[in-house]
Amino acid sequence: MLAAAQAASTTPALWAQLLGTARRAMATSLLRVCPPGELLRPLAVPERLLLGPGPSNVPRRIRAAGAAQLLGHMHPEVLQVMDEIKAGIQYAFQTRNRLSLALSGSGHCAMEAALLNLLERGDTVLVAINGIWGQRAAEIARRLGANVCELLKPPGQYFTPQDIEQGLVQHKPLVLFITHGESSTGVLQPLEGLGELCHRHGCLLLVDAVASLGGAPIFMDQQEIDVLYSGSQKVLNVPPGTAPISFSERAREKLLRRKTKPPSYYLDMSCLANYWGCDGEPRRYHHTAPINSFFSLREGLALLAERGLESSWERHRANCSLLCQGLLGMGLELFKARLPTITTVRVPEGYSWKDITAFLMDKHGVEIAGGLGPTAGKVLRIGLMGCNSTRDNVERVLGALRDALQRCPRSRL
Amino acid sequence: MLAAAQAASTTPALWAQLLGTARRAMATSLLRVCPPGELLRPLAVPERLLLGPGPSNVPRRIRAAGAAQLLGHMHPEVLQVMDEIKAGIQYAFQTRNRLSLALSGSGHCAMEAALLNLLERGDTVLVAINGIWGQRAAEIARRLGANVCELLKPPGQYFTPQDIEQGLVQHKPLVLFITHGESSTGVLQPLEGLGELCHRHGCLLLVDAVASLGGAPIFMDQQEIDVLYSGSQKVLNVPPGTAPISFSERAREKLLRRKTKPPSYYLDMSCLANYWGCDGEPRRYHHTAPINSFFSLREGLALLAERGLESSWERHRANCSLLCQGLLGMGLELFKARLPTITTVRVPEGYSWKDITAFLMDKHGVEIAGGLGPTAGKVLRIGLMGCNSTRDNVERVLGALRDALQRCPRSRL
Repeated sequence: MLAAAQAASTTPALWAQLLGTARRAMATSLLRVCPPGELLRPLAVPERLLLGPGPSNVPRRIRAAGAAQLLGHMHPEVLQVMDEIKAGIQYAFQTRNRLSLALSGSGHCAMEAALLNLLERGDTVLVAINGIWGQRAAEIARRLGANVCELLKPPGQYFTPQDIEQGLVQHKPLVLFITHGESSTGVLQPLEGLGELCHRHGCLLLVDAVASLGGAPIFMDQQEIDVLYSGSQKVLNVPPGTAPISFSERAREKLLRRKTKPPSYYLDMSCLANYWGCDGEPRRYHHTAPINSFFSLREGLALLAERGLESSWERHRANCSLLCQGLLGMGLELFKARLPTITTVRVPEGYSWKDITAFLMDKHGVEIAGGLGPTAGKVLRIGLMGCNSTRDNVERVLGALRDALQRCPRSRL
Repeated sequence: MLAAAQAASTTPALWAQLLGTARRAMATSLLRVCPPGELLRPLAVPERLLLGPGPSNVPRRIRAAGAAQLLGHMHPEVLQVMDEIKAGIQYAFQTRNRLSLALSGSGHCAMEAALLNLLERGDTVLVAINGIWGQRAAEIARRLGANVCELLKPPGQYFTPQDIEQGLVQHKPLVLFITHGESSTGVLQPLEGLGELCHRHGCLLLVDAVASLGGAPIFMDQQEIDVLYSGSQKVLNVPPGTAPISFSERAREKLLRRKTKPPSYYLDMSCLANYWGCDGEPRRYHHTAPINSFFSLREGLALLAERGLESSWERHRANCSLLCQGLLGMGLELFKARLPTITTVRVPEGYSWKDITAFLMDKHGVEIAGGLGPTAGKVLRIGLMGCNSTRDNVERVLGALRDALQRCPRSRL
């Protein structure tokens, strides 16, 4: 009791001292940074139709889930939501992998998590580069000290099994990175046979499906994909900040064979596997997860489960096809038209892409984007993802584009 | 036009092929994973009063901001919100550092970002360990290949300037890590003089203020702190998922002098500095930020700016003091009572901490927590943070505890 009394008595004393510091600080102008005026004005968020390469708009139900009151990150209700997210990811990925979970970060964070868990310093990784995402993966793998080999294709093209096999034979990598939906160019990479090919050459297959998941068929188990990840803010219509990821048994074994710990604790899959209840052990605290983002992600996956994958694939195909017909009808030239979620159109001659995107935003409240990485300045990108993939939105964006082509300045050809 | 027509004609053809794959998959049972039943039930989130060590409850205004419709991550309105967040962080941290921004991850992510940007392989870091956060920082620094030296104190104690100076002299570190608010033990670390001390020994001062920011005075510039970070989900009352961080000019120079790139792209401060408009260059896309989490964080910082730092410090002091008096009045023994945001109480003899926390949750809808790391099994932790720091909540948790002590099983002493 004496210790307790002492502890209690130190509280006011220490506080008097600390607040004394604060008061002296103010008196002697130590509290130099004043409340910023711009923060004292109310937050204003205009309504926009987001038809760029993501994020896409968020349905009311998902926004409401994200606005629910918080719970603790170890509460049984939250662990239950996490279990439901796992099941939803298994459905969306078409996998039975136990090690399926959502990362507490964006799709970019998932790319990093996949690479830093799979690779150790000196490991050889082959990166298929036909747009910005391969470039990014190579950059991250180099930072991790991996031996990075590049397999190059011009932007707009995809890799054939022959391309891949040549790379595997030449470089003997432990991991192959490839992008399913190249959102910078609009290319959909066929995945048939790649898993089997990789496994025949003792290599793991790592696939980025950030821009394609839910919009184009993918069968993780059937296609023998070892690591697959996506983001929340594309077809799932969930705000950015969480990223589904899954590891096959082969990939899990590679993690178990590591000689060194991954250079990140936040993204260490062995810790996350425990926190997500994937390892059969009692769940331990790892980090404070973005709980309400999990609520939103759960609802996005629930919407996909309710409507069905096949219907989602078909809807994206049909509306993308309508859009392409409309664009061609306006005399525009498609850059590549394989990815059903994001369509790339060449910037029409004589126009500035910036004028067109700014016109659509200012006059029609519609976002479409310019190019990115290798397509910067060359294309316009139009996304129709999840709830945004509708016939109405196709008509709205075509109408807005028609208006832009009439009213934006055009240099003489 | 021919190329365009061809491109368009490949779309339906490729799609027929892909959907053919999908249909065959279904016909031959390749689509093996069905929509999970648990996702088809509505999401249920009970209301809880979160008086644990965080997250704390989220006021309606902040929840509404997070539920606003999304904008694109490069839209001017979002860049404006990011500028306002920067200003809010500068106010909360009492700093004029240009390199102040919010990370797209939790407080844990900020710890990792601070260490991986400051340290290169082989750099010596001195980690002050008197609870779980020092342990975690040491673990992360080891993963990064740093030379990690530990300065140890028993849980519940803090470090004196003499302790620190001995460590600096003995180990000659480039960076000292120390925790301002040790949420596992309830200790508030005095910071006066530490910055000056570190700088005299050619060392940078890195401070974790996840559990203390806004609840206890901190003056980043005046106290010569080089890197300071916090989380969103404590006193700021914002859902977890973003983390304020700031680098002094000295710390920024260390980043510029790096011989190697940081092992993370997602958390590379030079990229983030550009995306956040801290480097005077045109802003470039880096990653898709958690936009609506930024809206929430902006509102949390706005609330702090409206009410004022001094008033926030004083409110936390007063309610924590009330709580301590009440706990002592019930015959409970305080473990350490210096941190005004989280109070640690010894588990009363004969009781199980699990019984008490479960009773409060089940019968009163109130979360309090057990210990963590070195205090696991030894203490109860009661958090009064941000909007949860009220006289009403003090009375509610004291009443609930009184009820628990009467009704939970007690072994004979």
